[in-house]
Amino acid sequence: MTYLTGFHAMDEALRSGSARGATLLVSAPGPRVKRMMDECGKAGVVVKRVQAAELERLAPGHRGAALALETQAAAESAIDLDDFCASLDGDSALVVMLDHIEDPHNLGAILRSADVFGANLVVLPERRAAKETDAVTRASAGASAWVPVANVPNLARALESLKEAGFWTYAASMDGQSLPDAELSGRVAIVMGAEGSGVSRLLKERCDGILSVPQYGHVDSLNVSVAAGILMYEARRRLGPPPGRKRG
Amino acid sequence: MTYLTGFHAMDEALRSGSARGATLLVSAPGPRVKRMMDECGKAGVVVKRVQAAELERLAPGHRGAALALETQAAAESAIDLDDFCASLDGDSALVVMLDHIEDPHNLGAILRSADVFGANLVVLPERRAAKETDAVTRASAGASAWVPVANVPNLARALESLKEAGFWTYAASMDGQSLPDAELSGRVAIVMGAEGSGVSRLLKERCDGILSVPQYGHVDSLNVSVAAGILMYEARRRLGPPPGRKRG
Repeated sequence: MTYLTGFHAMDEALRSGSARGATLLVSAPGPRVKRMMDECGKAGVVVKRVQAAELERLAPGHRGAALALETQAAAESAIDLDDFCASLDGDSALVVMLDHIEDPHNLGAILRSADVFGANLVVLPERRAAKETDAVTRASAGASAWVPVANVPNLARALESLKEAGFWTYAASMDGQSLPDAELSGRVAIVMGAEGSGVSRLLKERCDGILSVPQYGHVDSLNVSVAAGILMYEARRRLGPPPGRKRG
Repeated sequence: MTYLTGFHAMDEALRSGSARGATLLVSAPGPRVKRMMDECGKAGVVVKRVQAAELERLAPGHRGAALALETQAAAESAIDLDDFCASLDGDSALVVMLDHIEDPHNLGAILRSADVFGANLVVLPERRAAKETDAVTRASAGASAWVPVANVPNLARALESLKEAGFWTYAASMDGQSLPDAELSGRVAIVMGAEGSGVSRLLKERCDGILSVPQYGHVDSLNVSVAAGILMYEARRRLGPPPGRKRG
């Protein structure tokens, strides 16, 4: 079971349909909680009153309510990478692979950017704990309800699948080709590594190229979510708007 | 007095010279603290043993040591906007103004980007509490020791000073000109607003233009530090490398 406690995240889960089969647990019906109860009523989501202590145990840090999502439903909403590759049509696509980026703030901000720049898929190493998932959902300001995510057991194998599906694969690293000069077209997959350690050597060696954001500063590098945002912005600028999405 | 508790932030303060006249307060000399004591010795920074309770009171969340910076020294290292405008030479420059962005994670990430993209100045509304300053310094991974910052009492007046100094001023907002299509050259100042509220109307109306990162998603917007990073990346791409800085 995954518990969402942020109102924005709950709104997005309701809007996107990923709250189907969920239960809203309520301990203190203040104005925001009452509005959420109304929304759940409209969406056919069950509302259940619980003791404050019980809610605190299940969803620490809640603000009077938590949306309990079936973990099974969450698993079902995740994308199978092979299905994704098999069903993808169109010449251009954008995929982002995250090589063990754990910080929920960064992960949430990257999911927001993936939504904004119309990434077709975000590939993550397999499922994290429910508690982390909620922190990411909150940090993503609800974007995680919209972004297609594939949780894979092996990132190197996933990279090979993407290459077989016609993707050009790039590792983001400081020792590569300058991003403004790089040719980006067709199906593009970008691998981001954790801050400090970067993209693992195994993955980097398997990529077709390395992309670097030009840096002129004193400190080591950009925040990883900022770097990911810049790479997605630049990739989307080259690839053109995603099909069926209006420019906002 | 400002207390730095992050080892990375202390390193950067020593490296950049902003720790001049500071005191290292030590309660528990573990290996990292011992290394810091050595570094302080080399840099001529006084080391003082204190009781753990005392250090905890002064610098909550410390990990055995805190670098106490004179607030006066911190104030001296801040930049006066009029001096900056008067002494600026060269046709091109990049300034970022932050309109009440309070979250230390975002502020820290923006300072990192400002360093990486060689911003000439970051303009902030006047001084925040020392506790916040430390959180920002930590989140900036040391960049805040390098980035020239002007703390101003009135952002609208600061914007006018920049315009008088030949800056083209732009507000970042969703209802403006698409960033890839915008003409950016010469002296460029970009105003970023807080998430949710955005750039205040007063400032937005005084800007020469509005810049928008093209968005194709379901959620409201990018994380503000990601948006700021993209704008600085794009501005630097158009303006060319900052003088005297090698491309990293």
